[in-house]
Amino acid sequence: MSTTLDAPAEFRRVTAASPVVAIVGATGAVGVELLGCLEARGFPLSRLKLLASPRSAGKTMHFRGKDIGVEALDDNSFEGVDIALFSAGSGISKRYAAAAVKAGAVVVDNSSAFRMDPEVPLVVPEVNAAALAQHRGIVANPNCVAAIATVALAPLHRAHPIRRLQAATYQAASGAGAAAMEELRLSTAASLQGESFEPKVLPHPYAFNLFSHNAEMDEASGYNGEETKVIAETRRILGAAELPIGITCIRVPVLRAHAMALTVEFDEVVSVEEARRLLEAAPGLRLVDDRARNHFPMPSEASGQDDVLVGRLRTDLGDPSGRSLAMFVAGDQLLKGAALNAVQIAERLLSGR
Amino acid sequence: MSTTLDAPAEFRRVTAASPVVAIVGATGAVGVELLGCLEARGFPLSRLKLLASPRSAGKTMHFRGKDIGVEALDDNSFEGVDIALFSAGSGISKRYAAAAVKAGAVVVDNSSAFRMDPEVPLVVPEVNAAALAQHRGIVANPNCVAAIATVALAPLHRAHPIRRLQAATYQAASGAGAAAMEELRLSTAASLQGESFEPKVLPHPYAFNLFSHNAEMDEASGYNGEETKVIAETRRILGAAELPIGITCIRVPVLRAHAMALTVEFDEVVSVEEARRLLEAAPGLRLVDDRARNHFPMPSEASGQDDVLVGRLRTDLGDPSGRSLAMFVAGDQLLKGAALNAVQIAERLLSGR
Repeated sequence: MSTTLDAPAEFRRVTAASPVVAIVGATGAVGVELLGCLEARGFPLSRLKLLASPRSAGKTMHFRGKDIGVEALDDNSFEGVDIALFSAGSGISKRYAAAAVKAGAVVVDNSSAFRMDPEVPLVVPEVNAAALAQHRGIVANPNCVAAIATVALAPLHRAHPIRRLQAATYQAASGAGAAAMEELRLSTAASLQGESFEPKVLPHPYAFNLFSHNAEMDEASGYNGEETKVIAETRRILGAAELPIGITCIRVPVLRAHAMALTVEFDEVVSVEEARRLLEAAPGLRLVDDRARNHFPMPSEASGQDDVLVGRLRTDLGDPSGRSLAMFVAGDQLLKGAALNAVQIAERLLSGR
Repeated sequence: MSTTLDAPAEFRRVTAASPVVAIVGATGAVGVELLGCLEARGFPLSRLKLLASPRSAGKTMHFRGKDIGVEALDDNSFEGVDIALFSAGSGISKRYAAAAVKAGAVVVDNSSAFRMDPEVPLVVPEVNAAALAQHRGIVANPNCVAAIATVALAPLHRAHPIRRLQAATYQAASGAGAAAMEELRLSTAASLQGESFEPKVLPHPYAFNLFSHNAEMDEASGYNGEETKVIAETRRILGAAELPIGITCIRVPVLRAHAMALTVEFDEVVSVEEARRLLEAAPGLRLVDDRARNHFPMPSEASGQDDVLVGRLRTDLGDPSGRSLAMFVAGDQLLKGAALNAVQIAERLLSGR
């Protein structure tokens, strides 16, 4: 099958045996992880092209034992590129994705630019890989919370449609980029030494502190942009357009793995045992649910791991009907929440599955 | 009125003009704050007696410009004491509270020993001070999350009975004592220097990490002891015996203020504006709800403050009926969550109001 853009329902696979892959935003926190995932997973690429802002051009990055120079992104960057992994913010995606598609590449975009575009599939491979068949050159990689949450929710939702979801998040610094991670380290070091620290990257002090997510606030509804994204994207990925979702997104002083408390209501009573079985059998998940040892999902154990951790499964005492389950989830924001999911999408584009 | 124990419904006030106050567990994290609250609030005591384990006896602590020696607690410690503030764990309270009452003192107990005893009122003065009238020598000070949450919930509950509550907590190190706070500092310093650290006080690594609350787990229900306490105590303080409460208690790497995401369901639609008015007018609360500046309750601003901070008020999108509100609350675990509330109870015992 050849690479074409014509028929809407056609699955435009990447057919090069050893595709050329470009990373846009290679020097960012997610860019670094994209390199790592491509290498760790033995992604069958013939050439890796690293693109970034002119400021970062000229740097070199290490990949498969070689140094690769970072080039400045421009309209001609995508010639000969089969897969372009974008991770440089919405503005860059909106500006350059069309050029990449025009040059023949399939774009996997980690920004929010196209996530709600009906012509762009929003994909978590374990959950809705079939949506890839609709792509027309661009595939959107979801918000980190939505990606991590849906891996844990989908196995339950498939067996027993979820009717209502309540979430409170515990989000790591990495979601705000490498500079936020460094601000967490520096401000914490200052605090331990009794020194003052002026936050530059995040709007509030971060050392031993937490705060409502720093995404833009919709003043009318009182929900911030992070919460709005998670609601819309979770619905889209699960194929549950009307699912009521209540959510509070909080930034906590953790470096790179997100956690979340989820409460899920079904139409009927779903036993903890059945939920455990469903989650245990599901791809991309690891059940960490040891009541005797008080061992449940933690950012420290999710960091650097491909699998999303799920546990603390129990019948929710807040629902007198007994039809709700509570659980706690942790996943690496930079991996399943970003780079890993993008590379998994790219793998599916190659295999056509 | 004299201090008596006889009639069950009688309000046994402390009538000494300048009572003798004892602190049991004076050298602990809460004990230190009890001294601070008594001093800051100008509590009209004639003498302060500091009691602790034999290990701490002989230390001195500073109060109103003087050094006071710490004495070893024994059965005779309460002679002449009018008010005994206990904060040395359930075991000590169970062992010594009766001796204190027998010696004529009123006990304000910060442990969980008597909180669910129907003969012992469980009191948050802003919420249910009237319950003090039932005391027979012991008044229980609630669990820190229950105390902080009920200050924020009661003004809404009085105007519109709460029908369901969902909570996710972000709990500070201080709830596990001074040693846990120190472990958070030491393990974080080690982490920043790339050194390993073996947790001693808490069961899991704490630096830049979070974990399910370390209270004992009920293996049958999957709820831990902290969650069970918050559920039972919140119901008791609000006078809502059957209120369905779902809760996930999480320990976060914050030093001394607890935060919580609360979702509250009513029988009818309650507007955000009305909720704001009710909370703004309520004692012990400060509304921090600035959507334009993305400024909401944070542990850093709640620490060292008497008031509980409440904000991020919004209509919960997880409830299609529109009858639920979401909010975020932060309060100093050592103050309103422990020492301050105990001293406020003692003040009511003096004033008889």
